Amino acid sequence: MIRFESDYTEGAHERILKRLVETNEEQTSGYGVDPHCERAREFIKKECDTPNAEVHFLVGGTQTNTTVIASILRPHQGAVTATTGHIAVHETGAIEATGHKVLTVPSADGKITAEQVKEVYDAHWNDVTHEHMVQPGLVYISHPTENGTTYTKAELEALSKVCRECGLPLFMDGARMGYGLAAPDSDLSLADIAKLCDVFYIGGTKVGALLGEAVVIVNDALKKDFRYMIKQRGGMLAKGRLLGIQFETLFEDGLYVDIARHAVDLAIMIRDAFAKKGYPFRYASTTNQQFPILPDDVLAKLKETYSFSFWEKFDDTHSVVRFCTSWATKRENVERLVADIEAL
Amino acid sequence: MIRFESDYTEGAHERILKRLVETNEEQTSGYGVDPHCERAREFIKKECDTPNAEVHFLVGGTQTNTTVIASILRPHQGAVTATTGHIAVHETGAIEATGHKVLTVPSADGKITAEQVKEVYDAHWNDVTHEHMVQPGLVYISHPTENGTTYTKAELEALSKVCRECGLPLFMDGARMGYGLAAPDSDLSLADIAKLCDVFYIGGTKVGALLGEAVVIVNDALKKDFRYMIKQRGGMLAKGRLLGIQFETLFEDGLYVDIARHAVDLAIMIRDAFAKKGYPFRYASTTNQQFPILPDDVLAKLKETYSFSFWEKFDDTHSVVRFCTSWATKRENVERLVADIEAL
Amino acid sequence: MIRFESDYTEGAHERILKRLVETNEEQTSGYGVDPHCERAREFIKKECDTPNAEVHFLVGGTQTNTTVIASILRPHQGAVTATTGHIAVHETGAIEATGHKVLTVPSADGKITAEQVKEVYDAHWNDVTHEHMVQPGLVYISHPTENGTTYTKAELEALSKVCRECGLPLFMDGARMGYGLAAPDSDLSLADIAKLCDVFYIGGTKVGALLGEAVVIVNDALKKDFRYMIKQRGGMLAKGRLLGIQFETLFEDGLYVDIARHAVDLAIMIRDAFAKKGYPFRYASTTNQQFPILPDDVLAKLKETYSFSFWEKFDDTHSVVRFCTSWATKRENVERLVADIEAL
Amino acid sequence: MIRFESDYTEGAHERILKRLVETNEEQTSGYGVDPHCERAREFIKKECDTPNAEVHFLVGGTQTNTTVIASILRPHQGAVTATTGHIAVHETGAIEATGHKVLTVPSADGKITAEQVKEVYDAHWNDVTHEHMVQPGLVYISHPTENGTTYTKAELEALSKVCRECGLPLFMDGARMGYGLAAPDSDLSLADIAKLCDVFYIGGTKVGALLGEAVVIVNDALKKDFRYMIKQRGGMLAKGRLLGIQFETLFEDGLYVDIARHAVDLAIMIRDAFAKKGYPFRYASTTNQQFPILPDDVLAKLKETYSFSFWEKFDDTHSVVRFCTSWATKRENVERLVADIEAL
Repeated sequence: MIRFESDYTEGAHERILKRLVETNEEQTSGYGVDPHCERAREFIKKECDTPNAEVHFLVGGTQTNTTVIASILRPHQGAVTATTGHIAVHETGAIEATGHKVLTVPSADGKITAEQVKEVYDAHWNDVTHEHMVQPGLVYISHPTENGTTYTKAELEALSKVCRECGLPLFMDGARMGYGLAAPDSDLSLADIAKLCDVFYIGGTKVGALLGEAVVIVNDALKKDFRYMIKQRGGMLAKGRLLGIQFETLFEDGLYVDIARHAVDLAIMIRDAFAKKGYPFRYASTTNQQFPILPDDVLAKLKETYSFSFWEKFDDTHSVVRFCTSWATKRENVERLVADIEAL
Repeated sequence: MIRFESDYTEGAHERILKRLVETNEEQTSGYGVDPHCERAREFIKKECDTPNAEVHFLVGGTQTNTTVIASILRPHQGAVTATTGHIAVHETGAIEATGHKVLTVPSADGKITAEQVKEVYDAHWNDVTHEHMVQPGLVYISHPTENGTTYTKAELEALSKVCRECGLPLFMDGARMGYGLAAPDSDLSLADIAKLCDVFYIGGTKVGALLGEAVVIVNDALKKDFRYMIKQRGGMLAKGRLLGIQFETLFEDGLYVDIARHAVDLAIMIRDAFAKKGYPFRYASTTNQQFPILPDDVLAKLKETYSFSFWEKFDDTHSVVRFCTSWATKRENVERLVADIEAL
Repeated sequence: MIRFESDYTEGAHERILKRLVETNEEQTSGYGVDPHCERAREFIKKECDTPNAEVHFLVGGTQTNTTVIASILRPHQGAVTATTGHIAVHETGAIEATGHKVLTVPSADGKITAEQVKEVYDAHWNDVTHEHMVQPGLVYISHPTENGTTYTKAELEALSKVCRECGLPLFMDGARMGYGLAAPDSDLSLADIAKLCDVFYIGGTKVGALLGEAVVIVNDALKKDFRYMIKQRGGMLAKGRLLGIQFETLFEDGLYVDIARHAVDLAIMIRDAFAKKGYPFRYASTTNQQFPILPDDVLAKLKETYSFSFWEKFDDTHSVVRFCTSWATKRENVERLVADIEAL
Repeated sequence: MIRFESDYTEGAHERILKRLVETNEEQTSGYGVDPHCERAREFIKKECDTPNAEVHFLVGGTQTNTTVIASILRPHQGAVTATTGHIAVHETGAIEATGHKVLTVPSADGKITAEQVKEVYDAHWNDVTHEHMVQPGLVYISHPTENGTTYTKAELEALSKVCRECGLPLFMDGARMGYGLAAPDSDLSLADIAKLCDVFYIGGTKVGALLGEAVVIVNDALKKDFRYMIKQRGGMLAKGRLLGIQFETLFEDGLYVDIARHAVDLAIMIRDAFAKKGYPFRYASTTNQQFPILPDDVLAKLKETYSFSFWEKFDDTHSVVRFCTSWATKRENVERLVADIEAL
């Protein structure tokens, strides 16, 4: 069975493992203040062109989202996001568990617009009973989204402008950030993101690391006491260097985007193969996740050799499925899949 | 500088790293249901002689304590612990952040007694205004404690008996469990612990792993929906195998206790050296942490070559310090320290 | 200006005030265990035909919803309700503030169906990633709803059946319960409700009391330690008799439904007057709130003499508004309004 | 049986009931923005000499403490208080239920000192692991305390100074504020308190009202969005005027302090009677609660005619008990008690 079901089926990029082995006997301080974490911070700040940012390393996406959002909001505030947002659907109510409502706006492709944010904001403040409702307190977006789509620079600029006008911090979940940066049609760099967002994170778990997410806090107002929040939410590893070493490796010479580009290139090959056969797609993804709409007999045929995720029923005879590549996906496996698609 | 300041200054035991490298390209399911996690579970259940227990792998101590305690308590209940308990002091209010008070009882050495639990329980229920106070909901102990001390089997049996009579689940924090199992004067096995506690965890982070704690839920009533709780608290790693592979390695052939015994043996050498010179100890520890009370000039002298932790001021001319060994401590470094102590 | 804007514009029914004056110098125990609370409990249990129920008196609707829901749910569970449910929209995230997500299902008139509950339940449990999502933990309905609509006995039986099959406690918010009981087309008695729901409350604030809601817990499994929850959420009044005396008065001889019927009769007069003139209604309400859809010029005209609530824009020239009656509404004011409507 | 067991055994001062009856048919807006609330606010601000303060009316003490504290603290912060503080002991963990630890300092009489606050602050910030501990976020005191003791102006000035130097808002719980203002040896006025505290509340429930506490927010930084917090915590009554009318009555012409002085005068008579017979006191109270230490036979004798509260066991043959007076206590009952004490 050849697996295209997720981007976390393997361990870590070999250079990361090698570095872990090489540094294993070094004695370092705990809790994220060791030399490896420091170097990783410098590399990331340089890549983001934000010398004054704070960079923190956390364990996983749900924990990162919870820690950032709980750190920013006051008790009566909520996080605005797409109905499909990860925090709205797939984190077992982790945000609510910190006391905050997730305020959703509809989205066809996982993205939300500046207009929608403005509408939510105005709807709240124009309602005479607004004190009886949760106040929008920040905006949460993902790039790429759960659906593989990406924001353009113009879209993010518009969102950023509205958020600043409304006093709403803009938080970007970058669990798959690398695949966004490597998307062929994306014009957003990490430096752009750092300029337009108040806080964001660069995902390691799904882009070559064993685990780990790097939170970049750009807005000074959001920096205060963040390490307390990490500790309280269980994200401050005693052996913090485990995260530092991985991000050091990913960011010292561009490995992060290189391996993401590999994944995206292969995903595009899969997309093109399906498209050539005339199959439509659920979302216009240019990243490592592709969502073709396939007839049941085609699915049955492909399942003999490949694993991939069921996404949703499309109609009585078609389903949306997800093919996912990663830094670890082998080119020969994709070539074989492409050949099999062509032969359908 | 030779470091004795904590038991998390190095990476992981070499066999763990080796296994991570060997298995790196395997494709597995995420979120803790891969074959490595399954094998690790079997090894642990066998070692604990609890075929019906549930075993879950979490990331770190604070997160594990929070997840277990929040899963058990109803909103008006609190966790009974020693004033020095980790959850009472060193987790940035993580338990309170889930809505629960930590109810403390005094302790000279980190341990609490069956009598104290009974007193807290009776004091609550005998008070006519008990509905105005937090109800004791579980008992939290550490083995070894923060102070390096351990429970005897008789002590744990008494605690367990009282807890069951009072309907209070007994939860043991085993962040340093290995060092407790390896303590020369300890008569408690994992099987004993599994018989006497309702839930406990076996710490990996401080006993040879990069990170990870194995929660063992023995009491059926506490098992329901625990995986939701792990996810909500950010402990469900996408690459759950990272935890599974480590515990598999630690428990397949006794490595866990072997490396803990190494650390304890070296700690006892340090203890004996100080004792031979007539220095007293703050706590009667037989595990990997030793707490001598040393005059300031001795401390100044030792600091030239060794790092160790300041614990507390004892009087105007003496301080309590902590020397810590681990699976990674080198015998020659301990021998050098012992010689330097003898030469004082 | 004659006010029809809400059902809480006046103080309390005169008999309640009279009783407060008469009993003022009595010395009683605090916190809800005085003889007046006890008598009120007995009257309510008799009216509900539930001798084994527990009855508790709380301060207001938001507090009651929060206390009941937080008492029932485990941390990973949420409350299923209509998108328009009070807990979903108008309680400033009070439920989320206790850590729980509100899981909404669409509703055209404020009611939800047994089918919808089953769908939510099945959708959750059939999803292979259900541990990543909030688990449905109870069902919350209002009777009457925010929109003035009521459940029929058949509808409530169907809901109750599904809830019991799914293991979901059914909680009815009866902030306006009296107006539901008095609705001309309603076939639901308090005894029916007590048989079909696990817990519900009978609203005092909007039906003749100064403040106060009576929670009736029918399901034994939900009774344990509820008084702790009331105290923790700030609902246990030192002078608990203030609530007891009011419910004693409302329930000793049927005053509660009598005054509600008065309000409903007047509301129906208003409804019929608008209907006779051909104005449509946003919701088919048979209770004390009526929601006509009126042209802007009619609204402007009526506003000269009457106050009422803007509900929502209907189209460019029409709005939905709310006319509300209560136990305190004067018949002559309604007659005047009816005459003015007829004269439009 | 003559009751001295608490200060909430009766209803409300007769002038309050009279006013409720007089205003009962007035139609007013809900949620605390009616003319009665507005007038009450003006009276209170004038009495406190704080024209810029915000005044909010809440339901009870636990709810008020929870709402104020949750509004001020960030998630990693706690409230510093005496071990005997109401929030630490008698609110069923309401503060923890909002996510915050209560940080206690020892107290012999319910009061804490400026030095203690400074010590807690320094201990936190001087600890190298302070990020692993709850950060002091505000200081909570009661005046009078649970033990009937009061702060002097000099003591409160010292506390205020330290709090401002440390950046810790100072919050005074005035559940029994009236009795403190009326204490014969107290030199603290409401204007002093408003100058020295950042936020405080004036208790109604225990000083003549049916229920209600008036929160006065002096510090501008703590005012933002407080009404959202009241709503979320269930304290925003639909019929907010119920609170407004009561505080309007209590503050329009000094009734609040007048009735408190009545209670204190009677309490001092009781104190003097016990003192004359040579009985010692547990606390040096000059307010409406008196805590004599009495032999068991005396207690048995007094219990035949009077009810009072058991406070704590003093030794094998003595107990501390509490005698409590209020605005409603009758002089003839106190005279009878005094005679009975003299006759012992």
